[in-house]
Amino acid sequence: MNDINKPKIQLCLSPVSFPIYRQKELLVIVTDVFRATTTICAAIHAGVKAVIPVANRSKWIDYKTQGYILAGEREGLILPGADFGNSPLAFINQDLRGENLVLSTTNGTKALAVADESNTVVVGAFSNLSVIAEKLIHYNNKNVVILCSGWKNMFSLEDTLFAGALISEVIQQAPDRYQTNCDAAQASIDLWEKAKHNLMAYIQKASHYERLMKLGLKDDIYFCLQFNTTEVFPVLTDNCIINQNLDHSM
Amino acid sequence: MNDINKPKIQLCLSPVSFPIYRQKELLVIVTDVFRATTTICAAIHAGVKAVIPVANRSKWIDYKTQGYILAGEREGLILPGADFGNSPLAFINQDLRGENLVLSTTNGTKALAVADESNTVVVGAFSNLSVIAEKLIHYNNKNVVILCSGWKNMFSLEDTLFAGALISEVIQQAPDRYQTNCDAAQASIDLWEKAKHNLMAYIQKASHYERLMKLGLKDDIYFCLQFNTTEVFPVLTDNCIINQNLDHSM
Repeated sequence: MNDINKPKIQLCLSPVSFPIYRQKELLVIVTDVFRATTTICAAIHAGVKAVIPVANRSKWIDYKTQGYILAGEREGLILPGADFGNSPLAFINQDLRGENLVLSTTNGTKALAVADESNTVVVGAFSNLSVIAEKLIHYNNKNVVILCSGWKNMFSLEDTLFAGALISEVIQQAPDRYQTNCDAAQASIDLWEKAKHNLMAYIQKASHYERLMKLGLKDDIYFCLQFNTTEVFPVLTDNCIINQNLDHSM
Repeated sequence: MNDINKPKIQLCLSPVSFPIYRQKELLVIVTDVFRATTTICAAIHAGVKAVIPVANRSKWIDYKTQGYILAGEREGLILPGADFGNSPLAFINQDLRGENLVLSTTNGTKALAVADESNTVVVGAFSNLSVIAEKLIHYNNKNVVILCSGWKNMFSLEDTLFAGALISEVIQQAPDRYQTNCDAAQASIDLWEKAKHNLMAYIQKASHYERLMKLGLKDDIYFCLQFNTTEVFPVLTDNCIINQNLDHSM
């Protein structure tokens, strides 16, 4: 049922398409499953107070002298000068309470920068899928756009599958809560239906799977596809990503 | 198998993303299933010598005084001053041999304009799918990009399904002919797998289905989803679309 008074969920498959979807009072869920948004969730779960996404590499390195922790990646590799790369696994069992992390990655931080002009920007991954679904079902009345980071502005399977999984969960739990008559959203639901029974097998079709495997990052792939490893709800405000689900942080 | 010496097939889901794919010596297959590229195939099948796509509406109407036939559509409706709208059915059983048709539509002619700087631009639809597959298999050595017109630069299901059907036919007949490791191409194949058994039922998910149904254009939808109603192979050269499969024209 698509009542025009209900908020919409739309899916934007690439940052380059985002201007078409931009509007006032939007909730944007940015995802970069492999790996930036998974890493942000893991860092915040480890106690990081704020993640500062910086698309520009030279601005990023400037933070080094100011006592921030730096995480940086390009083309899958750790940037020189970084304390962390873009692996969520590096944050597991770390105690980073009170620290601020400055992050620059190939795709994810660019998508966050593109989304930043919107009112509310949430960081999403399989890691925190159910928390986001819960917020969408119980606490949101804005139109929603799920923004896939993709790979260098190209469509990516893993981000689209996250979108399909999230939309499916919302529809399953609250079938009449949103309008979902968006072709890309419909496609993501069908792709998720096909992939969900064996996500690790399906994801081998993704070009980014190949890229990460060549770098020996199979464990990262596996971790990035795990559901609900954390209950953080990271929200971008004034260029800082802060957990707004404070009861569930570390 | 993805040998780097083989040409690639990639799928570009929206004209706004095309600059990412642009390169020298490219074969671009432009599709706008509902309805511009289906209409172009039908017009050429009816004998039209050249279709001149014109994105700009005021330039389009200028052709009126020069003795051209005009076909024009915006938002599904026939443009004032046009001899034809954007319905392929209007060209069935017409004898338009030797005529030149000037066409302006909401999405399709814009996609053709975007693709035009590339070396070879082919017009594709379900109507001429097998002719295109045959050409790809037997006569092409360039990298291929299938460019979906979408709806106002948004992803559209019907164009993506055409891409999936075309890539599937090529892979089925010639499994090792192309590299197809493109995430969007992979997604289109899976969507096609899901849709192909009952295309008319599946397409009800598409927002453009709803739009056309509201305009009473169910017969158009049905026709646009028919396979191989013609053997024309329309190619854009010097801003004119000409049939290059001359043995099979009317």
